[in-house]
Amino acid sequence: MKIQVVESVLKADAAAAANNRARFTAAGVLAVNVMSAPGSGKTTLLQQTLTALGPARCAVLVGDLQTTRDAERLGITGSAVTQINTGRGCHLSPAQVAAGLDTLTLAGIEYVFIENVGNMVCPAAHDLGEQRRAVLLSVPEGDDKVAKYPTLFQPADVILLTKTDLLSVVEFNRAIVLADLARINTHAPLIECAPKSGAGLAPWLTWLRAARAAI
Amino acid sequence: MKIQVVESVLKADAAAAANNRARFTAAGVLAVNVMSAPGSGKTTLLQQTLTALGPARCAVLVGDLQTTRDAERLGITGSAVTQINTGRGCHLSPAQVAAGLDTLTLAGIEYVFIENVGNMVCPAAHDLGEQRRAVLLSVPEGDDKVAKYPTLFQPADVILLTKTDLLSVVEFNRAIVLADLARINTHAPLIECAPKSGAGLAPWLTWLRAARAAI
Repeated sequence: MKIQVVESVLKADAAAAANNRARFTAAGVLAVNVMSAPGSGKTTLLQQTLTALGPARCAVLVGDLQTTRDAERLGITGSAVTQINTGRGCHLSPAQVAAGLDTLTLAGIEYVFIENVGNMVCPAAHDLGEQRRAVLLSVPEGDDKVAKYPTLFQPADVILLTKTDLLSVVEFNRAIVLADLARINTHAPLIECAPKSGAGLAPWLTWLRAARAAI
Repeated sequence: MKIQVVESVLKADAAAAANNRARFTAAGVLAVNVMSAPGSGKTTLLQQTLTALGPARCAVLVGDLQTTRDAERLGITGSAVTQINTGRGCHLSPAQVAAGLDTLTLAGIEYVFIENVGNMVCPAAHDLGEQRRAVLLSVPEGDDKVAKYPTLFQPADVILLTKTDLLSVVEFNRAIVLADLARINTHAPLIECAPKSGAGLAPWLTWLRAARAAI
């Protein structure tokens, strides 16, 4: 008798992720897995991003344990948005993303944003089939987070330092973040922004357009 | 052939948690499992708490994926502090807490604070053998977090709303938090505080002393 429960789950996850990636690429879609701690500004950043890129060109799959609050906020832009409730699940799985993709029509869509569950640990360990990973770090979370959560920041393709409007009211030493990134991730650009005000949106849009052109 | 891998792990965890709890109670120690998102102010709150309660009466077990930064910050108070590095682990386990306890001498200790990995999902699912759970929510994380992370807030014995000094500079509607708590947790007091300044520390200390008297 052969017991291979974990192996088969891992293989199923890898196959589901590869299948998602093939669907994105075939449709000419850039899929971005957006990850961060809870409350770093993922939804606010995406609201601004959908509006700036053109809502009809974008779709969002948004993961939360419960509620449809983020989907409601994003749906106001006019983009197609599907909420994935994970119950007690601490991250999105590639199978959940596949089920979410089944609810979307990709014709005419150029960007799919996958807003992961707010969590700096578990989502980083799960390939969803995205072509790029965006990681947010908000100023009030503190300047020690890159060193404390390297598994999230190391594979990031772009890092957004959000809520920079709070730099003047909280203690935050940007040099610590830069020094930690110099050790673990030297390929991802760091974009400073304040999504509430729209500050810093332009370099993020430039990055997205270049990433889509490269797929 | 009987396969009971998951069951045996769960049993081992439950036994380890029960054993930790027995050790705490036998020593007259109140153990508090402190949980929140990354950057909510757990370490700053504990720095103030150790100093106020008397560093020699307190010990801390602090969980992080990597680094000893939190242990270094807490050790300055003079309390006994042990860092538990979880590697890729998204929460502390009762076995890790037992190993941490082995590094401490509980004689003369009245309070053991277990600072969990910054994560609003996974730590909530794991009993470490604590007698009380304290959950922090920081103002800049947003007023929607109680509804979005009910598995964390529902079993909390006390909830601390931290960084209230930022209420004047970020959008945060306290009424939403109170309405969500009224649905899922009506037994835990909500203590508003700003650990950086020490505001709100007194009711937290009162709660801790009453909780210790009740074990």
